[in-house]
Amino acid sequence: MSVVVVGSVAYDGIETPHGRVDRILGGACTYISLAASYFAKTSIVAVVGDDFAKEDEDLLAGRGIDLEGLERVPGKTFYWAGVYSADMNDRTTLRTDLNVFADFNPKLPDAYRTAPYLILGNIQPALQRHVREQMNGLKLAGGDTMNYWIKDYREELLATIRSWDFLLINDSEARMLSGEYNLKRAAAKVLEMGPRTLVIKRGEYGAILFHRNEHFMVPGYLLEEVFDPTGAGDCFAGGFIGYLAEKGFDLRHDKVGNRDLSRAVIYGSVMGSFCCEKFGVDRFRDLTRAEIDSRFDEFKAFTEF
Amino acid sequence: MSVVVVGSVAYDGIETPHGRVDRILGGACTYISLAASYFAKTSIVAVVGDDFAKEDEDLLAGRGIDLEGLERVPGKTFYWAGVYSADMNDRTTLRTDLNVFADFNPKLPDAYRTAPYLILGNIQPALQRHVREQMNGLKLAGGDTMNYWIKDYREELLATIRSWDFLLINDSEARMLSGEYNLKRAAAKVLEMGPRTLVIKRGEYGAILFHRNEHFMVPGYLLEEVFDPTGAGDCFAGGFIGYLAEKGFDLRHDKVGNRDLSRAVIYGSVMGSFCCEKFGVDRFRDLTRAEIDSRFDEFKAFTEF
Repeated sequence: MSVVVVGSVAYDGIETPHGRVDRILGGACTYISLAASYFAKTSIVAVVGDDFAKEDEDLLAGRGIDLEGLERVPGKTFYWAGVYSADMNDRTTLRTDLNVFADFNPKLPDAYRTAPYLILGNIQPALQRHVREQMNGLKLAGGDTMNYWIKDYREELLATIRSWDFLLINDSEARMLSGEYNLKRAAAKVLEMGPRTLVIKRGEYGAILFHRNEHFMVPGYLLEEVFDPTGAGDCFAGGFIGYLAEKGFDLRHDKVGNRDLSRAVIYGSVMGSFCCEKFGVDRFRDLTRAEIDSRFDEFKAFTEF
Repeated sequence: MSVVVVGSVAYDGIETPHGRVDRILGGACTYISLAASYFAKTSIVAVVGDDFAKEDEDLLAGRGIDLEGLERVPGKTFYWAGVYSADMNDRTTLRTDLNVFADFNPKLPDAYRTAPYLILGNIQPALQRHVREQMNGLKLAGGDTMNYWIKDYREELLATIRSWDFLLINDSEARMLSGEYNLKRAAAKVLEMGPRTLVIKRGEYGAILFHRNEHFMVPGYLLEEVFDPTGAGDCFAGGFIGYLAEKGFDLRHDKVGNRDLSRAVIYGSVMGSFCCEKFGVDRFRDLTRAEIDSRFDEFKAFTEF
């Protein structure tokens, strides 16, 4: 069943210890949709400028992604540049040019409004809420946010996530949102804010899923080489929602199989790990579903006891 | 089958955000042996001063630990004091008084020499080697070390671990010992130094077991309150060797069940997690084997998918 992805499509300049690239395809919506496209029909809502390249559009279209909601306006596409630390656990933003993204006002094509799955990349919480309200018949909706919205747009963010089924954030965001350092306590507080499911992403250390009174933990995949971590968290989100859409998972009607949620976390981890293997979206140019399923099996092998 | 534990028995002064205690029972040998004692007959080799309290001896004896190798000499017992950071991920040593530990020269009682399991806490590598050489008929021997020996006693350390079956160290030690930042590459280099099995402890992020070309990963147990992490790594080591001793695990004769090694890592994680729940060794005053097995089951429940 189909997934609607809302967020940024961008050009990125990235420097890691392995090299430097500029103006390569990036943005949360790009990564989420590429990852989700391996599991379910995926449609995007985003905005780009008139500099957006045919080859980048072709990459998305080549993965079967519906681009009806990709708006093109005069001006330049959102640009971000950053440099990673030697161990790649930190990054410094060198430049953020919002360009056409500054006036992004997500417009849902009519055909998108009845899609059962919605994932909202990290954008202004009021815009996220506005999109959510235009959808009819959602089985599962949720998304991501970031420190900026948690700190300076708290009330707006709380009003937005109140109606979400799941929230996907990293550990420092969970701590900031809840005011609790301990992740178990932080999760308990976040689950009181609305979402019945919380996924805390911990980068190389894996992820934790909190659902009602239970939790599920997975360690991060041990890569021999982390080439470029940009987009890994968004690919996690894409694998997570993609797998749940493929299974027809329905949180509303309480048809909740926790195993499905746990497996969605594994597929999220799988997609995040592939993302790190090459610069930007490069790994998705030839990644196959068979490779994805084989890495899922690897997760089983190295966590079972 | 019985386990011999060699290392420090100490008095600790500890300050965490939860409070401050002074001169409480501590030391690697203490924690390792307390944890191991839940699984197998445990004997210790250590030295204390004439200030060593009857009640501390009683705690060890009460757990059935054989104290024949606990040497008492005139002077004061090893004293260490430290303070933890607010998030308890860092600690600063305030004081280290080696006292009688400065001249520690482990003497193995005759009855210990034929024990099948040996675990060497973090002491001078030459002393560790000396102990290892006095044992006859070992099924499994290994131990711990630290940055100081890796940096300043490298050759001595390499000569020591060459004959070990397993090495248990944390991630920064693995990086320092191998000269590789990436843990998968670091492990490959360490496994070439002798030990066929390497366990990398990652604190709250769990542990990784490397054995030949395979690895096993477990996330850290999610505690609602980390009261005092002192000794958690040593309790991990005690649970690890204790469980293998209980199973009669024999690495020499290639009777290697990887599942047993993986489960030993889980029991190590279980013992480390209990250790953090109270100050010092306090959790072991009333901890039961039933609680340990029940937490093992919890690990299964929150990692299975």
